[in-house]
Amino acid sequence: MSVDLESLYTDLHAHPELSFQETRTAGVIARHLADLGLEVEEGVGRTGLVTTIRNGEGPVVWLRADMDGLPVEEQTGLAYASTARGTDPAGNAVPVMHACGHDMHVTALIGALERLVATTDEWAGTIVAVFQPAEEYGAGSQAMIADGVLERYPTPDIVLGQHVTPLPAGVIGVRPGTQMAASDGLTVVLHGRGGHGSRPHSTIDPVVMAAATVMRLQTVVSREVDPRDVAVVTVGSIHAGLKNNIIPAEAKLELSLRYPDDAARERVMGKVERIVRAEALASGAEKEPTITTDHSLPPTINDVDATARLSHAFRRAFGEGAVVDPGMFTGSEDVSWFARESGAPLVFWFWGGVDPQKFADAVAGGTIERDIPTNHSPFFAPVLQPTLDRGVENLVVAAREFLA
Amino acid sequence: MSVDLESLYTDLHAHPELSFQETRTAGVIARHLADLGLEVEEGVGRTGLVTTIRNGEGPVVWLRADMDGLPVEEQTGLAYASTARGTDPAGNAVPVMHACGHDMHVTALIGALERLVATTDEWAGTIVAVFQPAEEYGAGSQAMIADGVLERYPTPDIVLGQHVTPLPAGVIGVRPGTQMAASDGLTVVLHGRGGHGSRPHSTIDPVVMAAATVMRLQTVVSREVDPRDVAVVTVGSIHAGLKNNIIPAEAKLELSLRYPDDAARERVMGKVERIVRAEALASGAEKEPTITTDHSLPPTINDVDATARLSHAFRRAFGEGAVVDPGMFTGSEDVSWFARESGAPLVFWFWGGVDPQKFADAVAGGTIERDIPTNHSPFFAPVLQPTLDRGVENLVVAAREFLA
Amino acid sequence: MSVDLESLYTDLHAHPELSFQETRTAGVIARHLADLGLEVEEGVGRTGLVTTIRNGEGPVVWLRADMDGLPVEEQTGLAYASTARGTDPAGNAVPVMHACGHDMHVTALIGALERLVATTDEWAGTIVAVFQPAEEYGAGSQAMIADGVLERYPTPDIVLGQHVTPLPAGVIGVRPGTQMAASDGLTVVLHGRGGHGSRPHSTIDPVVMAAATVMRLQTVVSREVDPRDVAVVTVGSIHAGLKNNIIPAEAKLELSLRYPDDAARERVMGKVERIVRAEALASGAEKEPTITTDHSLPPTINDVDATARLSHAFRRAFGEGAVVDPGMFTGSEDVSWFARESGAPLVFWFWGGVDPQKFADAVAGGTIERDIPTNHSPFFAPVLQPTLDRGVENLVVAAREFLA
Amino acid sequence: MSVDLESLYTDLHAHPELSFQETRTAGVIARHLADLGLEVEEGVGRTGLVTTIRNGEGPVVWLRADMDGLPVEEQTGLAYASTARGTDPAGNAVPVMHACGHDMHVTALIGALERLVATTDEWAGTIVAVFQPAEEYGAGSQAMIADGVLERYPTPDIVLGQHVTPLPAGVIGVRPGTQMAASDGLTVVLHGRGGHGSRPHSTIDPVVMAAATVMRLQTVVSREVDPRDVAVVTVGSIHAGLKNNIIPAEAKLELSLRYPDDAARERVMGKVERIVRAEALASGAEKEPTITTDHSLPPTINDVDATARLSHAFRRAFGEGAVVDPGMFTGSEDVSWFARESGAPLVFWFWGGVDPQKFADAVAGGTIERDIPTNHSPFFAPVLQPTLDRGVENLVVAAREFLA
Repeated sequence: MSVDLESLYTDLHAHPELSFQETRTAGVIARHLADLGLEVEEGVGRTGLVTTIRNGEGPVVWLRADMDGLPVEEQTGLAYASTARGTDPAGNAVPVMHACGHDMHVTALIGALERLVATTDEWAGTIVAVFQPAEEYGAGSQAMIADGVLERYPTPDIVLGQHVTPLPAGVIGVRPGTQMAASDGLTVVLHGRGGHGSRPHSTIDPVVMAAATVMRLQTVVSREVDPRDVAVVTVGSIHAGLKNNIIPAEAKLELSLRYPDDAARERVMGKVERIVRAEALASGAEKEPTITTDHSLPPTINDVDATARLSHAFRRAFGEGAVVDPGMFTGSEDVSWFARESGAPLVFWFWGGVDPQKFADAVAGGTIERDIPTNHSPFFAPVLQPTLDRGVENLVVAAREFLA
Repeated sequence: MSVDLESLYTDLHAHPELSFQETRTAGVIARHLADLGLEVEEGVGRTGLVTTIRNGEGPVVWLRADMDGLPVEEQTGLAYASTARGTDPAGNAVPVMHACGHDMHVTALIGALERLVATTDEWAGTIVAVFQPAEEYGAGSQAMIADGVLERYPTPDIVLGQHVTPLPAGVIGVRPGTQMAASDGLTVVLHGRGGHGSRPHSTIDPVVMAAATVMRLQTVVSREVDPRDVAVVTVGSIHAGLKNNIIPAEAKLELSLRYPDDAARERVMGKVERIVRAEALASGAEKEPTITTDHSLPPTINDVDATARLSHAFRRAFGEGAVVDPGMFTGSEDVSWFARESGAPLVFWFWGGVDPQKFADAVAGGTIERDIPTNHSPFFAPVLQPTLDRGVENLVVAAREFLA
Repeated sequence: MSVDLESLYTDLHAHPELSFQETRTAGVIARHLADLGLEVEEGVGRTGLVTTIRNGEGPVVWLRADMDGLPVEEQTGLAYASTARGTDPAGNAVPVMHACGHDMHVTALIGALERLVATTDEWAGTIVAVFQPAEEYGAGSQAMIADGVLERYPTPDIVLGQHVTPLPAGVIGVRPGTQMAASDGLTVVLHGRGGHGSRPHSTIDPVVMAAATVMRLQTVVSREVDPRDVAVVTVGSIHAGLKNNIIPAEAKLELSLRYPDDAARERVMGKVERIVRAEALASGAEKEPTITTDHSLPPTINDVDATARLSHAFRRAFGEGAVVDPGMFTGSEDVSWFARESGAPLVFWFWGGVDPQKFADAVAGGTIERDIPTNHSPFFAPVLQPTLDRGVENLVVAAREFLA
Repeated sequence: MSVDLESLYTDLHAHPELSFQETRTAGVIARHLADLGLEVEEGVGRTGLVTTIRNGEGPVVWLRADMDGLPVEEQTGLAYASTARGTDPAGNAVPVMHACGHDMHVTALIGALERLVATTDEWAGTIVAVFQPAEEYGAGSQAMIADGVLERYPTPDIVLGQHVTPLPAGVIGVRPGTQMAASDGLTVVLHGRGGHGSRPHSTIDPVVMAAATVMRLQTVVSREVDPRDVAVVTVGSIHAGLKNNIIPAEAKLELSLRYPDDAARERVMGKVERIVRAEALASGAEKEPTITTDHSLPPTINDVDATARLSHAFRRAFGEGAVVDPGMFTGSEDVSWFARESGAPLVFWFWGGVDPQKFADAVAGGTIERDIPTNHSPFFAPVLQPTLDRGVENLVVAAREFLA
């Protein structure tokens, strides 16, 4: 009896969980793997899972999918839209949504494992399937590594992974070299002095300090980075105050920074820190801002030879036009830690989840940004098919390419 | 057996409650009033209380105290500091503190009632004591009026109230005419378009929209109001986003506006609205901002004749230097609704709660703003004595002045 | 033959001169004074003039008028509008206009001298008439004092002066105590690093540094000054760059600051300097900004007794309603140096130059700001009459009040 | 007798002229061409020159050099530094400097013509040498075309040109396809309402309007353009006001915009216009801003085949490492109009003018931006040699490659 992948996908979509809280998701995955006759270890890196298919002599191929959802309030209007709520690390009740397609990643990997199990006479080697938690915190792969995943399982000859993205369905995007940006997540706390909303002069207003800082941070990208280089400085959250008539004592900013490499990281971080500190001085703050790095992700660098080999395999399987070079993505991933720490080559590719006609119309109309919701948008929703089938096939083709 | 007012005060201080949630506070008040042999009605205007002392023919004097605390995390280090938590109207868990001295107001009114009950042979008339909830929402007095307090109790010949403030202990501040500013509390929701933190171009960033709005709102006071007029535009809270790598779909600002009268209100409100709407246009927002008035407070206007009479009485009781004209305060109050709706005159005064030597040192050192915490500061803490005794005496002197 | 004051006024209006360049103006004044039979000394404080009327024993009354125009391009459309050009201290060709009414001041003083000369049998004492240059630079009175005017002419028993302003014609505004604000004029040079407009990352952009500084300076008044205090921080000029595709090496700001007294001056200056320096740091400037004080004016403080006496005289002459308390003006003057340095009392008053009906309509319509051009506006234009006649009468009444 | 190219260069450097004012420069060029025995036409496109070398049957090769300086105050400290002053189109006296190396371009072309004249036995065809004015206004090539240069001279088979740049001396940078960005120069006039610096409420402050606009314009690049795309929004000049105590009536901004193609141009222009208009609304401006396009430059697109051929020739002449792909430059050029209008292919390359050791040290130290002045910087100064010799050789090699 084959897995009903579409039902699995809509079930996962309707029940997203935040990073390191993917316990229901893990249970669903474990049950399906058991149905395939596979042994599965749960709780690897807190909420991750690993399963292994040993099929004679041959290369060791790691297939990785991430599992976690995001604190986003789903607005897709889908029949299987999420209404879930979770609790974020700060203890706040937040909505949760699979706004980055990790439900699709999990389902495609389970579908691929089913096919690979059914065709063991056609290939040889070892498959290690890794269901990784907490990609969105940039912490899950390191948690699994800290938990010994690289020692306790066969060492990879290659690490493979994929991500669904707003390309037209049917299209694979992959490039040799830097495929995704390096990134850092920072928390900045600006310290002012609280007081009565009617007496600003007796306070040091952290709301104005934060606003001035946000405006000034725009100049890092607009003025201080070579226009030909890639850099992003996003203030993803800003929080201060509880009531209109109380000037609060502090403000908190959460920043996401992106760049292609470590040299750029150092330059941009230096500029951000310079601006944050100077804007506190401009406010007359009595205490320096607190700047904390919450996570730090390396660039995702595809092995040049393995990428060429896989692109060739994809073209053979899906046609000449099926593979494009999408350029470096400004998004970031922690998948590369598995490759970096083990010394194995990595190939990480994107596959399209947008109805091709809709995509073509948006391109023609110049309305891509408005009409094609991106990952992390409350409207993000890959078309179920052919996205799901292609997600399965991509993994099968890729695994088979590197297996014997 | 007399009331232990100091214990009452520290108990109330340690157990603050948010607006319209003052149920423990109401219970404490009711118990003390019952101990004084007074009948008390609870639940007036949700969590308010009223008691009446009828003592023969004579004027009807209303004495009003407010009861609620604020969502502020106490940092006074006092032995009786609050560690309370509450739930704000949006459902968030927040710290709570008596950061505006309403605990002092309640205690002083109970102390004054005790003295007035003990001296009924010295005066004639009727005292109506009003323990009002939710002053901080600008909603409590109107809730009591909607609940019929003006019809169900003797109509006031005068309404009296007082507020503890960072004047030196021993000093009363009161002036005829406008004593406190008119004020509005606004909530502004700025609508952007959410998306991935690494792809700002696919979003309409509400964090930047909010920051630009906050910076532009500064120009209302700095450029558009006559420098000789009083106006305040405070953004007391700013909230957007849940995670560094998700650009949220909207941002919320809470504003507190202050002005001396309704003409200024109209002008300033118009400017604020113009700026908010234009900044959304500058961001290319696809939806207009939502601007809601949460509360609207009239100016607190002291009756000229009654204020002169009371100032004279205060000087007689406490010495010539005991009364100063503190100018108009930019803070606001909803006490005046009792007077406006009943047609009675109002006198509302401030009394000092700061150690006089500390105050003098701060004046001499030019460090008032740094060293003397104001109302709504996490460090706000009137010195217990003589502040409490004087709060009691003020009310007794004032009530006796207007009673027969 | 009497002076044709209207022709004199329109001639002066059509030929304004910048500060310390009032040579044509001085010539016109000298000729008229000579026609009145008065001896006049020219070149006092570079381009100023002084004349004296000695008429027996009695008090010495100084009457002062200022003479200079402003770098404003007149847009009044008047038949006698200025088309003059001048050269400012930086060597730039600029338009010039009597946008502050000093032409009216000069004409009124000449008219008053004519009347006083014609009525010497009615009064006794000494009149010193001072035509002061360069009030707009805040430098003229000090230049005259440095030139010995206080030693070389009879020491004043009182110093009197007046200013035309957008009050209704017929109204005098005067108050005891602080009549006009203290003020400082600052020049701020922000040092960046120049380069090609297409390569911002190789520069330190002084245009953005200047813009951020201007926005942040708004918070001095909006957040850091007690809303009940008077303060103004105006950036009256901003200059950087010569071409769209060259990022310049520096930017220049000229600031005008206003406050009621020296304590406020120190506080505001400190805040301005803090912000300017911090914004340079935020830009990563390699050189500290240069901050220069161009002029520094004391508050204009009217003597309490003399003001009461003069207000009484004005009411007697022009009717009870003719004198109002206009509050402290945020404008500034250097007239008070004559009084400060000589120890004499000062009275400085405003008189109205707006058609009363037009003023009343603007008040009723709430369009004062739009419809009634203020001093320094390119549309500033007192109605010729009754403004001029009243300017003459004011001085005659005032001088006679203090003469024997 | 050969031309003393070094003396020619330092003479041109010391005597820069603004766009369309290059009359002395034209005279120097004309004299040198005459010395070479060439006929020269002056006044083509106002101040441009053209000369032709006809040398038998063969291709027609156009060699172009631009001639104009910039309003920059030279700070190189060179013995031959410019102290020249000019008058810009607005009538202002400004400093003038060869801050973009056009003096080097002119000298190198004269040197190359000398060599080509001396070697006519080695090549066949026709050379058209174009000395173009007003490149910095983006107007010179169109002026020459309007003046009939394409009709009156042999039609080009190829158009060649070069630009000195901060690459190491000895290095040529060239790439097929888009070599330089498209660009627009805009003038924005923001209309406020002028008035007295002490009465901001009676004005609509254009300085604040301009500052807010500059800050908001940063978000075009930081938030609204794909981080992987190239775009620049520079405000190269900002001007408002003449005096600290007059709030002016308007502010003027000059913008330089850069992008790779016309689609991006349309998007960025739309965003800039949206922000400018919205910020005027935020200020309550009574009149819409005036936005004028001063010039509009197409991208400089190198012909793919001709670039390959020329790169090969350069490598053959100067060694394998001598040619690099410098990426698209964000600077812009009007040279391509000659190719676009005639239908000929274009190759435009950069050559290095920085001492190689100094360049290497700056790269190693991460101080490129600080230590290597770029074009348009007041410190821009190519090392005289080998820059000049290589400029000559580049042109000779390139011309000979495309001649018979």
